[in-house]
Amino acid sequence: MTNNYQALLSELTLEEKAGLCSGGTFWDLRGVDRLGIPEIALTDGPHGLRKQRRDQSDHLGFMDSEPAICFPPAVGLASSWDRELVYQVGEALGEECLSHDVSVLLGPGINIKRSPLCGRNFEYFSEDPYLTGQMGAEQVKGTQSMGVGTSLKHFAVNNQETRRMTIDAKVSERALREIYLSAFEHIVKEAQPTTIMTSYNKVNGEYVNESKRLLQDVLRDEWGFEGVLVSDWLAVDNCINGIKASHDVEMPTTGDYSPKKIVNAVKSGELLESDLDKVVLRILALIEKTEITKKHEMYDQEAHHQFARQVAAETMVLLKNEENTLPLKQTDKVLLVGDLAQKPRYQGSGSSHIIPTKIENLREELTKLMPEGNVIFARGYEADLDVADSKKWLDEACELARKVDKVILHLGLPARYEAEGLDRSHLNLPENQLELLSAVSSFNSNVIVVLSNGSAIDLSWDGKAKSILEAYLGGQASGGAIADILVGKVNPSAKLAESFPEKLNDVSCYHDFPGVRDETVYSDDIFVGYRHYDKVGIKTRYPFGHGLSYTDFTYSGLTINSKKISADEKVEVTVTITNTGNVKGKEIVQLYVLPLGATVPRPIKELKGFDKVELEPNASTEVTFVVDKEALKYFDSVANEWYVASGEYQVAIGKSADQLVLKTSITVENNTPIATVVTRNTPVRDVAADPKKYEIARELFETWYGLIVREKTSDNDKVDTELGIATYNNMPLRGLINFSQGQLIDDEKLDKLITKLNAVK
Amino acid sequence: MTNNYQALLSELTLEEKAGLCSGGTFWDLRGVDRLGIPEIALTDGPHGLRKQRRDQSDHLGFMDSEPAICFPPAVGLASSWDRELVYQVGEALGEECLSHDVSVLLGPGINIKRSPLCGRNFEYFSEDPYLTGQMGAEQVKGTQSMGVGTSLKHFAVNNQETRRMTIDAKVSERALREIYLSAFEHIVKEAQPTTIMTSYNKVNGEYVNESKRLLQDVLRDEWGFEGVLVSDWLAVDNCINGIKASHDVEMPTTGDYSPKKIVNAVKSGELLESDLDKVVLRILALIEKTEITKKHEMYDQEAHHQFARQVAAETMVLLKNEENTLPLKQTDKVLLVGDLAQKPRYQGSGSSHIIPTKIENLREELTKLMPEGNVIFARGYEADLDVADSKKWLDEACELARKVDKVILHLGLPARYEAEGLDRSHLNLPENQLELLSAVSSFNSNVIVVLSNGSAIDLSWDGKAKSILEAYLGGQASGGAIADILVGKVNPSAKLAESFPEKLNDVSCYHDFPGVRDETVYSDDIFVGYRHYDKVGIKTRYPFGHGLSYTDFTYSGLTINSKKISADEKVEVTVTITNTGNVKGKEIVQLYVLPLGATVPRPIKELKGFDKVELEPNASTEVTFVVDKEALKYFDSVANEWYVASGEYQVAIGKSADQLVLKTSITVENNTPIATVVTRNTPVRDVAADPKKYEIARELFETWYGLIVREKTSDNDKVDTELGIATYNNMPLRGLINFSQGQLIDDEKLDKLITKLNAVK
Repeated sequence: MTNNYQALLSELTLEEKAGLCSGGTFWDLRGVDRLGIPEIALTDGPHGLRKQRRDQSDHLGFMDSEPAICFPPAVGLASSWDRELVYQVGEALGEECLSHDVSVLLGPGINIKRSPLCGRNFEYFSEDPYLTGQMGAEQVKGTQSMGVGTSLKHFAVNNQETRRMTIDAKVSERALREIYLSAFEHIVKEAQPTTIMTSYNKVNGEYVNESKRLLQDVLRDEWGFEGVLVSDWLAVDNCINGIKASHDVEMPTTGDYSPKKIVNAVKSGELLESDLDKVVLRILALIEKTEITKKHEMYDQEAHHQFARQVAAETMVLLKNEENTLPLKQTDKVLLVGDLAQKPRYQGSGSSHIIPTKIENLREELTKLMPEGNVIFARGYEADLDVADSKKWLDEACELARKVDKVILHLGLPARYEAEGLDRSHLNLPENQLELLSAVSSFNSNVIVVLSNGSAIDLSWDGKAKSILEAYLGGQASGGAIADILVGKVNPSAKLAESFPEKLNDVSCYHDFPGVRDETVYSDDIFVGYRHYDKVGIKTRYPFGHGLSYTDFTYSGLTINSKKISADEKVEVTVTITNTGNVKGKEIVQLYVLPLGATVPRPIKELKGFDKVELEPNASTEVTFVVDKEALKYFDSVANEWYVASGEYQVAIGKSADQLVLKTSITVENNTPIATVVTRNTPVRDVAADPKKYEIARELFETWYGLIVREKTSDNDKVDTELGIATYNNMPLRGLINFSQGQLIDDEKLDKLITKLNAVK
Repeated sequence: MTNNYQALLSELTLEEKAGLCSGGTFWDLRGVDRLGIPEIALTDGPHGLRKQRRDQSDHLGFMDSEPAICFPPAVGLASSWDRELVYQVGEALGEECLSHDVSVLLGPGINIKRSPLCGRNFEYFSEDPYLTGQMGAEQVKGTQSMGVGTSLKHFAVNNQETRRMTIDAKVSERALREIYLSAFEHIVKEAQPTTIMTSYNKVNGEYVNESKRLLQDVLRDEWGFEGVLVSDWLAVDNCINGIKASHDVEMPTTGDYSPKKIVNAVKSGELLESDLDKVVLRILALIEKTEITKKHEMYDQEAHHQFARQVAAETMVLLKNEENTLPLKQTDKVLLVGDLAQKPRYQGSGSSHIIPTKIENLREELTKLMPEGNVIFARGYEADLDVADSKKWLDEACELARKVDKVILHLGLPARYEAEGLDRSHLNLPENQLELLSAVSSFNSNVIVVLSNGSAIDLSWDGKAKSILEAYLGGQASGGAIADILVGKVNPSAKLAESFPEKLNDVSCYHDFPGVRDETVYSDDIFVGYRHYDKVGIKTRYPFGHGLSYTDFTYSGLTINSKKISADEKVEVTVTITNTGNVKGKEIVQLYVLPLGATVPRPIKELKGFDKVELEPNASTEVTFVVDKEALKYFDSVANEWYVASGEYQVAIGKSADQLVLKTSITVENNTPIATVVTRNTPVRDVAADPKKYEIARELFETWYGLIVREKTSDNDKVDTELGIATYNNMPLRGLINFSQGQLIDDEKLDKLITKLNAVK
């Protein structure tokens, strides 16, 4: 921070202030030359820099930008479950920003993967808000540690590309809090991102960038967000409403169009200049904080590339490995099949599309790592096509497949299947690839499938492969990382950050997604991803948290330091992990909390902790988790507050969401009743549930009980008694007036009673 | 109609008008002595009269009333799928009302069975709105044909007993229209019920009895309801708001309490006297129409009882009948086991509880119909208990079971399991009964289970029985009707009007029901009952529409008189039904419509027609259904209107929801685009979808296309082109302003364009 631009507020003209509230170009904030306030550059991320040349940035073309390292997109980073690694990626990105004079990198993207069809899932971390929050926070912290700004996006409930600029997401407050806002909340509190990018869509009828409730009340006042709110590109309808809601910057530039509107709004009194000033102060603070004041050297591109290869290998999930078909032996004769092995697909399409500094492909990298002559290659299919192509490729592959020990089939989704702006309509691999798989697997039974795709796909064909490596989109060093894993140079350690359903039909929002024209109803509510599969009791093809290793781990010795806590206390849970296999490896240990006997709908289980440990063969280590109110709470939509309910909670340690190997339980006691604002329409039971309130209403309630509950004398009357008690409990307070024709209590007395009841603390 | 009470409006004082708006007693409307306006009596139904003696009606005791015929509750009536029969029941009820000077019978109850746990399901018809509407309309027409009023209840979305007086049902407009209001709409339009009873609960935050939208806008203005709205007993919070919303009568009496409020509200100007007058006129019209002006003779109680027995036999569903175990042969030695066979459970508890004129029990009735000595009886369990009881009963039953050809086990739910005011928490039969079943079935393999219960129960034990007769709650002649079916005097012909799930967990609202304190979220939306099981692909234990006969029916010769229609046309579908068995029988033929390839979420199939035919052995008959827009439409929640979408629809004839035996399909063409109100935020695609609108915006859109869509040159650019087209389509109109910095179009021009676009018809 070299200059105190904030001190210049009083020197700015109204027009200059208005100008600061939208971009000066497609990619830069406006500066004020006169006062030495610089333009700062915002550049697409999230897993690499897409710095467009300024003369080419006045359209939405996604393909041109200065070369940069393409790291694995978020789908891969999340699968590493490695906080430190993601922090380091954030650092590396920050370093690259400095080299390119970029002040703010637009990312990370932390929207929840509600449907595997969302075209932008590859840019997001997980279906689970806890894992998303943990990963996102590290990336933000890493980049910001370099003095470079981030832009957490897309706030909020931007879970589909279809009609994203106008869609209205109808979602309950509880699902908002527990699923769709949860990671934002965590990252704001933990990492304080420099900026947050508001999304295109509406939430419950209101554009997010005009929502005072979401922006001012929740994000700023409740969570303490201090940074700048930047609109997604062309998201702003009404910039005046935005400023009133505490929204800061409209992007990209609209020339003089929006600034003039702001000036006019202040002049007409529609907008208070003091509201504008708050926005301007935040923008000046951002410029101050992220201005690149000196020329940085170009980062070491080769070192970053090597790091990208190391990262990529940490993001690839070994889904299946029968008969230890992997790793390859050096003596194996291997056929590598698949156009993708020479034309790799290592990133998604859209605003995150990077021009890489270089690209590794699997064919070359695998050949390097195996003895000469042991790897032969066949194209197999044309990656640009998705219907049956020339039989030539298929026949050649089959012919060769008979002659080798193992066949590696590199399959994956074409670029146009996974792109910002376009949702998928199905989960299938292209037809030509499936045909190839069927044919080849009938000629060789040792088929290893390597997958390049950015989101869950249909794997109903998995019986045809002995091993499956989900390589996701591994960034520019993807090819080398896959090769490293195939030959066992790297022991795979990633686990799925999303469920792979048996079929599309099983997905929580199958019938809702992507909605009816401009309305999309989130009727799956809090039951997204594994929370849904648990709820309806459906098996997935591969569950959330699943991933294999070339070694084995056993879990033992679960201990807990307390079995009974109050709502404000915490427990420590410790488990011992042992590498019982023959090679060094890393294991991701997961902790789930299962609320037993909850009186409100709760997911069967929720991820509330994880750790990744590396162990030599026969080595053991202890992993300790803390379970506190953060892990126990739910959002009570009636009281409109987070609450920890009394009761029993199971604490389970899992290898995946479907493999909970050790369990213990705790009893939680919360003596603070949930907040109840008593009104005329509050039923007797809710008043009586709070002992202090009951005491105040005791006389009235006892009389009421006497009037309505009849003593049991016969079986029939036993029912009558139960109905009487139900009527006693369920009667709203105002019902006592009408029931008694005003004799038991009247409106005036009831108002006084309610005041007393609400005064109870 | 003997007097023109409506002409007396001008003679009524304000106090008298206010008095008419609430009851004069617990059960009577207030009259005005001075002007000869009588009190009229309202009495609980819906399947019998519960006329309480006036000196006992000032409490909610449900057990005392004058004897009346107890017909099968709605759960049974619906299972008959017999429109004429239900009409006749309505007539009989009307005749009984006249004998007892009752002007209005409070029923039928037509709420949708969202969860089998709802304690009042026995009083409702079905999980399906079409079947509910058809049955409800007949009952209303039957009763009203006698000059007696009805009260269609409970309007609306009253699908649970838990906290029913304060619960707020959060439900989408579409689910309201297609599921929860649909039967009300049909019955109002088809049968114009004299009154409608408003329910206790709130819908989307508003008490129904204060909802101008539901009462005035939808019920009166849209559907044309002309009758009186009566509150459920003690449902009214604010009677002034009620009158403003076109609500009429508050029940029961509040003495002077509410009338005084109304008088004060008119005097203070809070309530317009003209609004009050509208209410009073409707109430006077009701009194006019339903006043009992002469003494009617007592109806023939024995004839009505015999009719009740005939009706009951039509309502019992043969769920299973392996090896033709039923009907009994006269030579069969039979053991009848079960306390319920001597202490029958034939109705539910609560306001519908009738004091019957007499009661038939299965033990006596079966004994009468079988040769002497061929039926022996064992108590088996104590009906009042639900946990393991004295081993004596069980041992005795097992001992006897070894000695007979067949065992009839009469099982069922205790009275307190199914009651107004109390929801169930599980679907199980009492433990003592399940124990008995297990024990007895190990001693005799020919077990026939007869069930008395009012709503779906867990039948996971059904492998232990060769036959199961779901007798539901058959009314006072239940025992005789069961006996008639067991011996084959009556051939069973009922089919389920509700799904029997495999387990509670499978139910659409398992996680929502009964909500969190005073809020219950209908996240299952339109997917209730079989619509849910279809959606998630779960098998039920016994599907909606299932029921067996002692004969067999084959379906053949499906014909359709047109394969392609416009949205306003209709087709006729004809199918031939043949009795291929050996005895006379009745078959319920069901028609389902399956929208194929719908672009909005639709149920896989919906019931849109049914008929019940009786056939001698070897006889055939044709059944013809009409499929028109009523069968094709859905409620479009964005346009807020019913709409028939173009596309293919399968028309299927089914024996049950899971047994669609014949299928054909039609293509529907609708040239009227769905209503789109163009705003600044309407995406280009929605304007372009209407050819007339596109023409108006053509020049603008073509320029916009040229700016944003780049021609494809390579594979990468192919993606870029697709993204460009998506951006073109998804851009809201106002985005063109900001994108072009006001050059392409500005606010003023856009406003003008929008006006033109919306003028297109």
